[in-house]
Parts: sequence; C-alpha cells; structure tokens
Amino acid sequence: MGHEINLEKYHIRTDLAIEAIANIKSETGIKSHVEKKEKITITSVFLDEKGSNHIGKPEGVYITIEFDDVTDYHNQENVKQIFSEQLKEMLTFLKIDSDDLVLIVGLGNEKSTPDSLGPMAINNIVVTNHLYMLNSLGDGFRRVCVLKPGVMGTTGIETSDLITSSVKGLNPDLVIVIDSLASQSVERLNKTIQMTDSGIHPGSGIGNHRKKINKETIGVPVIAIGVPTVVDAVTIVSDTFNYMHKHFSYSKQNIDNPIDRLIPITKINYLKQQYNLKKDDKEKLLGMVGSLNDNELKQLIFEVLTPIGYNLMVTPKEVDFVIKKLGEVIGNGINRALHKNVTNL
Amino acid sequence: MGHEINLEKYHIRTDLAIEAIANIKSETGIKSHVEKKEKITITSVFLDEKGSNHIGKPEGVYITIEFDDVTDYHNQENVKQIFSEQLKEMLTFLKIDSDDLVLIVGLGNEKSTPDSLGPMAINNIVVTNHLYMLNSLGDGFRRVCVLKPGVMGTTGIETSDLITSSVKGLNPDLVIVIDSLASQSVERLNKTIQMTDSGIHPGSGIGNHRKKINKETIGVPVIAIGVPTVVDAVTIVSDTFNYMHKHFSYSKQNIDNPIDRLIPITKINYLKQQYNLKKDDKEKLLGMVGSLNDNELKQLIFEVLTPIGYNLMVTPKEVDFVIKKLGEVIGNGINRALHKNVTNL
Amino acid sequence: MGHEINLEKYHIRTDLAIEAIANIKSETGIKSHVEKKEKITITSVFLDEKGSNHIGKPEGVYITIEFDDVTDYHNQENVKQIFSEQLKEMLTFLKIDSDDLVLIVGLGNEKSTPDSLGPMAINNIVVTNHLYMLNSLGDGFRRVCVLKPGVMGTTGIETSDLITSSVKGLNPDLVIVIDSLASQSVERLNKTIQMTDSGIHPGSGIGNHRKKINKETIGVPVIAIGVPTVVDAVTIVSDTFNYMHKHFSYSKQNIDNPIDRLIPITKINYLKQQYNLKKDDKEKLLGMVGSLNDNELKQLIFEVLTPIGYNLMVTPKEVDFVIKKLGEVIGNGINRALHKNVTNL
Amino acid sequence: MGHEINLEKYHIRTDLAIEAIANIKSETGIKSHVEKKEKITITSVFLDEKGSNHIGKPEGVYITIEFDDVTDYHNQENVKQIFSEQLKEMLTFLKIDSDDLVLIVGLGNEKSTPDSLGPMAINNIVVTNHLYMLNSLGDGFRRVCVLKPGVMGTTGIETSDLITSSVKGLNPDLVIVIDSLASQSVERLNKTIQMTDSGIHPGSGIGNHRKKINKETIGVPVIAIGVPTVVDAVTIVSDTFNYMHKHFSYSKQNIDNPIDRLIPITKINYLKQQYNLKKDDKEKLLGMVGSLNDNELKQLIFEVLTPIGYNLMVTPKEVDFVIKKLGEVIGNGINRALHKNVTNL
Repeated sequence: MGHEINLEKYHIRTDLAIEAIANIKSETGIKSHVEKKEKITITSVFLDEKGSNHIGKPEGVYITIEFDDVTDYHNQENVKQIFSEQLKEMLTFLKIDSDDLVLIVGLGNEKSTPDSLGPMAINNIVVTNHLYMLNSLGDGFRRVCVLKPGVMGTTGIETSDLITSSVKGLNPDLVIVIDSLASQSVERLNKTIQMTDSGIHPGSGIGNHRKKINKETIGVPVIAIGVPTVVDAVTIVSDTFNYMHKHFSYSKQNIDNPIDRLIPITKINYLKQQYNLKKDDKEKLLGMVGSLNDNELKQLIFEVLTPIGYNLMVTPKEVDFVIKKLGEVIGNGINRALHKNVTNL
Repeated sequence: MGHEINLEKYHIRTDLAIEAIANIKSETGIKSHVEKKEKITITSVFLDEKGSNHIGKPEGVYITIEFDDVTDYHNQENVKQIFSEQLKEMLTFLKIDSDDLVLIVGLGNEKSTPDSLGPMAINNIVVTNHLYMLNSLGDGFRRVCVLKPGVMGTTGIETSDLITSSVKGLNPDLVIVIDSLASQSVERLNKTIQMTDSGIHPGSGIGNHRKKINKETIGVPVIAIGVPTVVDAVTIVSDTFNYMHKHFSYSKQNIDNPIDRLIPITKINYLKQQYNLKKDDKEKLLGMVGSLNDNELKQLIFEVLTPIGYNLMVTPKEVDFVIKKLGEVIGNGINRALHKNVTNL
Repeated sequence: MGHEINLEKYHIRTDLAIEAIANIKSETGIKSHVEKKEKITITSVFLDEKGSNHIGKPEGVYITIEFDDVTDYHNQENVKQIFSEQLKEMLTFLKIDSDDLVLIVGLGNEKSTPDSLGPMAINNIVVTNHLYMLNSLGDGFRRVCVLKPGVMGTTGIETSDLITSSVKGLNPDLVIVIDSLASQSVERLNKTIQMTDSGIHPGSGIGNHRKKINKETIGVPVIAIGVPTVVDAVTIVSDTFNYMHKHFSYSKQNIDNPIDRLIPITKINYLKQQYNLKKDDKEKLLGMVGSLNDNELKQLIFEVLTPIGYNLMVTPKEVDFVIKKLGEVIGNGINRALHKNVTNL
Repeated sequence: MGHEINLEKYHIRTDLAIEAIANIKSETGIKSHVEKKEKITITSVFLDEKGSNHIGKPEGVYITIEFDDVTDYHNQENVKQIFSEQLKEMLTFLKIDSDDLVLIVGLGNEKSTPDSLGPMAINNIVVTNHLYMLNSLGDGFRRVCVLKPGVMGTTGIETSDLITSSVKGLNPDLVIVIDSLASQSVERLNKTIQMTDSGIHPGSGIGNHRKKINKETIGVPVIAIGVPTVVDAVTIVSDTFNYMHKHFSYSKQNIDNPIDRLIPITKINYLKQQYNLKKDDKEKLLGMVGSLNDNELKQLIFEVLTPIGYNLMVTPKEVDFVIKKLGEVIGNGINRALHKNVTNL
C-alpha cells in the first residue's frame, strides 16, 4: 500500500475503568471482583498507584454495574436496588455519616437529550436541605441539596469553576457528580453504571467540562456516577469487525451439527461463548485489516472517517425513553442510599 | 359592628417603586420624570436617602416602562427597543465599560410558568464568555455569562448564597438579575418592566429568595429587572372597588348626555380620565366599606380572605404565551444593550 | 344614581351542574344525593326533562366530587380512588361491557398550562387498542385508544368535527371526553371533578370548542369529565363580597365570647358554618351594593370590569403542579375503572 | 468457510428514491435532472411505470434537496428558500389553486426527538382555516389546517385510519405529509429533504404507520416530505468499508507527491473525487469481505449484527438542535410556498 498508516492519531480513551482494564489486565496485577445478581453483573476494581499508572486512570475504587434494558419495569427496579446498595457501600467505605450534608451535581445539557442524564437524575432527587434550614427535616432524612451547573456552551462559565465556587459556599461533606459518558463498546451503551471515588475528568465524555473534579481539587470526597449514552462510529465499526470474527468462528465450529441448521441464527448469541478465529482465518476473511490488533484497527477506522467528517457520535433512536428511565434509576437509587426513610422513590 | 377591624395585619408591600411613590408622592419631595414613546410610558425616579426613608425602598434609580400587550408583534418590537435604550443609559450611568464582563442571573423556577420569566429570558441571551476564553470573541461583542440558580424549594440552596459564591468565583464587573414580581395593581400585570440599580430583595415577589442582592452584599454593581406576573385576590378586589367608584362617577357625569347612551359602555375606558366620587356618594354606594381609604380597604379584604385560604396569588390564563414573549423582550433587549453588534436578537 | 345598571349584560353561565342547582334548588323539585368519604364530598344529581328546563343544563346524571388540595400525596390517592369508583358506577349505569372499545379524548391546548388538563390526563392513560390489533392484549385489559384533537386556534379545525370524524372511523362503544372548565366559585377551583353522561358543550369553559359532543351528535354514549381550572375576576370579587358578609356576621355573633379573642382569626374558617347577615346590616356594611342579590352583584361587577378590559380569566400561580397532579388523578382513575388488572397506575 | 452466507435475509429498503436509483440507474432508462444552487444540490426524477417497476418505488415525481448542516444560520436560510421554491413548483405541477384548502399532517412521536420532525414542523406552520371560518382571513393567505395524529404505540389508533377519517370530514384539496425517514447512507443523514407526489408508505422509516397514504387511498393529492434522521449500524459499517477503499485508493495515488505529506489528511475530503480500488487491491485490503458487492456486504453485516441485537438504529448526539432547525426549514418553507404574503416565517 506504500503509504503507511499512522496508527497513533486516534488516542483511544475510555471513561470506563472496566474497559481500560479489559485491554491489559493479563499483563498487570490488577484484581477485580465480579458478582452476579438477577442477571446484573457487578465488577469492583481497586486501583492502587501501580495499577493506576498501568491503565492511565486515577487511583480509587471503581464499581461497574452491567444490566439489560431498563425500559423493562422489573429490570429497572432490580437495577435501582442494586445500584442503591453499591452506593451505600461506597458511602460506608468513604466514612460518610448519616447526617452529613451531600451536594449532588447533575452535569450535562438539559436541552440535549443524550447529554441530559445528569439534570434528569437531579429532577428525581429528594431535596431536603431547605427543610433543615426551616427546622422541619423529618427523621430518617439527611440534608441533601442539588446543582445543575449547565454546560459551558450555554452558560459561558467553566463548569468546574462553578462547582468549586458552590462547594466553597455550601461546605458539603460529600459531592456526588452525575454525568453522561462516551462508550467504547456497543454492548455497554445505556447498559452500564460506573461509580468511582476517583473523581471525574470531564471532557472525555460528551460534554466538555474539562477540569478535574475530585477530592484534591474541591477539598471534599467525590463520588462520580456515569452512564455511557453515546458511542462513536469508530467503535461501532471496530466492534462489528470483532463480531464478524466471532460469527465466522461460530459458523466454522457448528457447521457439521445438523441440529444447528434448524435453529435460526437470530436466536443464537455467539457473543456469550468464546469463538475466536485464528490469525490465518482472520486474514482470509478480512485481509490486511484482519491482521490488525484492536488498537490498530480503531486507529485505522479513525483515520478513514475523521477527514471526511463521518466519525459521528451517535445515540440509539430510543434515547428519550432510555434517558428518562436511567434518570429514575440514578435519582431513586441515590434517594434510597442517602435517606433511611426513602424506600420507593 | 362592635368588633373593630385590625387594619394592620396586611402589610402592603410592592415591588414596584412607581406604586410605592404613587401613594405618597404629594407629601414628599420625590420627583419623577415621565416620558411617552409609541404608547409606552417611561417613568424615571431618583430616590435619595430622604426619599428612600419616605417610601421604604432602597436608594437608587428606578426606571419603569409601562406598555400594552406584548403578544402583539409590533408592540413587542417597540417595547424591546425602548427597554434596550433605557438599559444602555443605565449602563452609562453606572460607568460599565463596553468590554466589562457581565453575569446575568435568571431567578425563579423554570418549571412553574408564572415564575419562569428569569430562566426564560436567560434562554434568549447571547452568551459569549466561553468564546473569549477560546480567543474567538468577535468584534462588537462583550463577555457575557449566565446563571439559572433555581429556587430553594427544588435546590435546597439559598439562592442568594449561590449567586454570592458564583460572583466570587467569576469576578464579573456587573450583575444583571431578572425576576418575576407580584403586582399591586391589575393594570400593571405583565405590562410593566422595572429596572433599578438598587438591587433586589427577593421574597417580596413570588419566589422566596430572601437575602438582598445588591452592590453592598456582592461587591459588584447590580441591575435588577423585574416584571409583575402575578397578583393576589386582595388587589383584584380592591382595584374593583376603585373601578366601581370611577364607573359611578362617570355615569353620574354623563347621564344627561344623550349621545352617550348610544355609545356602548364597552367602548369607554373611564380609567383614562379623572372620575372621582365624593365621600358621600362613596358611602351611599358602598356603605361603611366605601368610607375606607386604600390601605384600610386592602387590610380589610386581607382579613376576610386570609383565614379561609382564598387570598390566592393568580396569573392570567394566557400565562404561557405572555411569559414567552416577555422573556424575548427582556433577553433580546439585554443583548442589544450589551453587544454593539447585536441589533435583532 | 340616575343611570340604571343594566343587569342583564352578564349572562352567568356555569359548567358545573352543582352550581346551577345551588342557585335555585329550593324552588324546584330537583333532588340530589350527597355522600362524604375521607373529607371528600360526592354529590349525585339526576336531571329529568323538567329539571333540565329549570336550570338550563341538558338532562342526565351529574356526579360532582369535591376535595382538598391534590398536591398532597395521600389526598391525591383518595381522590383517585373515589373518582375511579364513581366512574365504574357510571359505566355500569350506561351498560358498557368490560370488553367494549373506549375512545378517550383530551380537549384543550397542551402548550397552555391552565388549558392542558385534557392532554395531560391522556398522557397517563394505559392505551391498549394497538395490542389488541396485534393479538397481544392481556387478560384484564380492554381496548382503549386516545385522541388529543388540539384547539381550533392552533389546528384550524373545529374540534368537534375532528372528534366526529374519528368516531366514525373508529366506531368505539363509549367516548370519554376530558376538559378544563371555568369555575363560578373560588372554592371549587382545582378542587372539583364533574362527571356527566349528558355530553359536553364546549365554549363555556376556557377553550372554545363550540359544538356539542353528546350521544345525539356522535351516536355513541359520552361521559364528560371536567375540572374547573380558571376563574374570572367577577367571581373573585363577588365571592369576596359574600365572604365579607359572613366575616361580619361571624364577628357580630362572637364578639362577646372572651375565648374567641385569644384564637387568632387565621385559624377560623367561618365558611363552614352559617353566618348570614340581615339585609339592614348588609346595607350598612356595603351600601347600595350590599342590597343586590348574587346575580345582580355579578352583573354589576361585570359591567364595571369589562369595558376597561380587567375581567381577567386567572389561574392560581401553582398551576403547573396542580394540573400535573389532576392529570394523574383523572388518567390513573380512568385506567383503574376501565382495566380490571390496573390497580396502581 | 464451510457455512455459506445467506445473503437474502437483509432486504435493503430505502425511503429515498435517489438512493434506490443510484444503485441501478445505469441499467435502466430512468433520467434525473441535477441542479446546483449555493452548494445545495437539487435532483428531480420522474418515475414512469417502467421505472417504478425497476426500482420498486411508486410512480411519481421525486425531488431531492441535498445540503450541509442547517444549524448554520445562513445555510439554513438558503435551504429554506430553495425548499420553498421546489414546493411551489410541485403545487403548480399538481394544479393546486392559490385558494385551495391544504391539510398538513405531521407524522411521528413528538416525545421522541429523532421521530419528532413532523410535529416539530407543524409547530412552525401559519394556520389560517379558523380565520376563514370567522371571515377574517387576510389577503395573500390561503386556508391551512394541521393535524398531529401521533403514533399508534401511544394512541392505539392506526395512524392512516385517523388521517383518512379526518380527510373525509375536512375535505381538503391537498394533503401534505411530513415524516422522519431512515437513511441508507451516513452522508445524507439530516442533510436531505425528499419531496414526492407518490404518497408515503410509512413503516419503512422509523415510525410504524404501515398503511399507504396517497391519492388512491385518501382521494386527494398528497405531497410527502421526508428527511432521513436515523441510520442503522449496518449502514454505518458498510459505508465505512467503502470509505476505506477510497482512502486507500487516495493514498496509493498520492504517496509520491511530496507536498501531500505536508497537508494533514484531516483537510482532505477524498470523497469528492473518484478514488476507486481495483478488485485485487480490495481483496488484499479486506480479504474475502473485500470481494463482496454493496448488497452482499450489507447482508453480511446484517447477518452478523442482528442475532446479537446490535443492529441499532441511531441518530447523531446533536439530534435536539438539528431537528429543531429542520422543523423550522420545513415549516417556514411550507408557509412561504402556501401563503403569498408570508416571506419570512
């Protein structure tokens, strides 16, 4: 081909620690704990300094909850409950007392549906700090206040500056920050909640909030909660290449099984098992491109799509309904974790 | 009647200086300048220390613009233009430079239509501060940023505290605060803009933001812009008593004019001229109640309606359309006053 | 006064049968049944031809449910339940079968909050007719479809024509129509649901839908459900005159009771008992105006306010929250009455 | 590979005639006329019976307008103007008189942003039919009324049935139907308007309205206006394969040009010229997959993505802003074409 592909232009970033780790776990000593409840997978990772350097994510605890479609009512309830329990554990871990003041910040643009998860979740929060100021805070409730700082493109204000000023004025004991993220995989889109005490470095996701918000920068413990709600075309294409490998590997292994011919392929999820293609087969199938590793492949696709303006960030067409439900999961889940007397909001 | 009416329970407050002055102007030395343009009336009042004590409003300049229905397109344009010119004069008076940073704050609850004027106006502001930070601010534009602090009932945060913190962090040269007010007259409802450099003392209007926001409290010049969007039942009733007086006075004077009988009364605005009833006639018409002065009347109505819960704060049923148009008037008018190169937004 | 007041210009109309009857019940043979449940009053009236002629409302059954503020969660639940039970009884009375197709129509303008009750209620309806068409209608559910016809001012289409066409095309067994009404009393504002099988004659309320919708015009039984959400200034003022009478009557009767002086008047609801002033006292208190009967008083106030444009239609400033809750009451109540298997939506 | 790919499972459908034709134009006698104005491309195609059979689209005139991002103000104005002119020509072609009654129908779900183009456009229409009924229709305006039928999933009513009933009741001379479409190319997403007199066969796009709406079914001429607002993952991936071919072809041709090395590839749009790879190179680059033609490729990707549930329909993350602007283009463009006296709305 003459011209060599510059494979370094696409700096692959992910907001999800679980994805960063997946790529290199084997080479490092990073350990993760995986648990399954009601078809929901909970992965806990503790990144110490060494692990942090390895994967380029800040030190801290990362809890990842993976689940199916939350527009299903029963599934939504299960996710809400498990998210709430995990958040309670994180509060205990961070030694937050039951009467500590909590400020909850919803990042993102309320008027842009795929970026509105933060403000949407805030709309579901049981706010109580003003009742405390009026001496009418009920038993089993703590002081909670909220902030929707908006996005710099519409406010003209650096979001992290606004948060920092507000924290100085309010002096909360804990800040919870909620944001929409970009996904590095089609599978996790709208189906993953990440929770971490390592803060948030906006700008990686779909907003551009840029300055870090963590215990060092604002002087107060921070829990960042994020859900990937958008994905770029590079990810869709590179995931499809991988699915192609698995699809062919599956076909190869099962072709002699006569029963399989009767099962329509639409019923088979070949992602659930390991179907890996050998290098030779990959190249037969996808030529030179088939010989690239994951990063090289993403960089190539990025180099192809970017100059022509087609590396779109996209969101599923059901975005309005999904964000509404996710906002309920996050908002209600936070209520149950923060207020003893809230069990169903 | 035996039981004497306690006439002091209803503390009559008004957010509009023009109303406070109207009641007592004759007794004081307060002077006001009145100008008419295109059926729009502009009243300017300068309150010095003495005047301030007299009427119980803080010292400062008060500009009041009175106009007809802004859901009429041409009238809306005229009001926008005149409001913009008055604001420019106020900027000059306060010595605000053309490249000074301005923070615009929209008070009120975006989700409660009659209280949403502030946030609605903010949605129409040309925000530029982020472009300045990116070195891409065009000629004829100044740095402008905005804040929608929400209301304490939904954020749990004292609104004035949030504004104070933000001002400390941002360090603007001027703060413009926009709010919905309560009216003390049916005539001015949705048909008056007040602009003042004396700050704002929320809590008088329909929100309950409570702490003063002015140059002393936040260390920066403040221009407060308000429009009365709600009125209480006491005002509707007491205004009607006054209209009754005028109506009967008009009838008395015109009864012998045979032409008048042919003009349907629906075409006559008897408010535009002076039709005053003598004390005797008032008592004949409205008995003991007719003998009360304005304040006594309001206090009586307040005493009647409050214990049974019917001193409602109300807003005209067209509130959604009117607030939208008023938000455009305020937002676009501010744009034209702040940015030299904006003439039609 | 010379000029005589033309007392006939204000044609007093009310959308609520209960109000029409209240004025003249004593003179007619119309009987009503009143029941109390959990502070909620249910009044049932059956208007035969004679009664219909008497009060100028069409023949039929009228159920009126009166209640307190539905922004209180527990009260909202009670109202929902009782409304649902009354609707079930009306279905039985009209011989609607459990698998009959029902079309629910939400009248009013979704973008004008005080007029949005119809569309808001529709948003809470469990719609099932498309599932029936796909053969996937579950047990305990009937076929339900909905229509938001909008208002003529934004669609250009006579609303009743659109409903008639749709009924012809769909052929439902029952049509339920939901609308916002105008109230003739401050007390009933947002605190009354009227349900009737006599159809709806829009144009009396705040929309202007004009043509009758009833069994005769559309060929299908109609249940009309309405809530008064706006009130005019005439009503506010004339109600206040009546409260004044009661207030003074109360004062007169209680002045010698020393305990009463210790009870702040704000705790006393003198509306709950009968405090009537004698004619003499009325005239002492309110002069010539005090001698008018209810209709004359309303006509006078109408004549005073109308020529100067101040007979505003108004709605309480909390309109956004109240309409949301009322929309849930109506929508959820209908669901429970129509679908056996819905008990909490 | 043993198992052969079933290439017929993915039935490639497109809502855009221009795409259907592109695939097979060379083999047929279908002629299209292409015009360029202000960077906007207008393609007109007349499909007679033979052409219709060839490409599987109904007979009629198809006008396609292709343009750049309409969130740019000046570009938006140009697109509006050209769309309006094309619509005027279509009205002339269909012999619609200047005082004929027009019904405009906005298909789609107002509460699902990517599917809300129809209702959004309706919100921008100058509606006049009610003024005509009140004898107050101004000169230079025709009778226009609108309908937002909603979607079957929320109304329970087959959308085309509701339209048919309404047309019977209203008897308009022309029906204009606006809908969101699915795109078969990333390039056309939100950047194409198709207008046709051949009616609309909903169900191909993102809604599922299913029954045909055309002159035969409703007895009145129909102009269908559509914009592709969503795209499926199959299209994104197959488009990327094609871009890869072009990218490599470009690299091959330009590698020896030393200047080219200095031009960052991000500045080069290699789609604008013809860069085609030979079959050999394709297979070297992409193996067996590189040897497939367009349809085979799409069918393969469909077979890979569908069983695992990842053939997502997606929309760009800026969907809220783009749909708002497109709704203005369509709504304002229709106003200018229908009403002589509207030039800027």
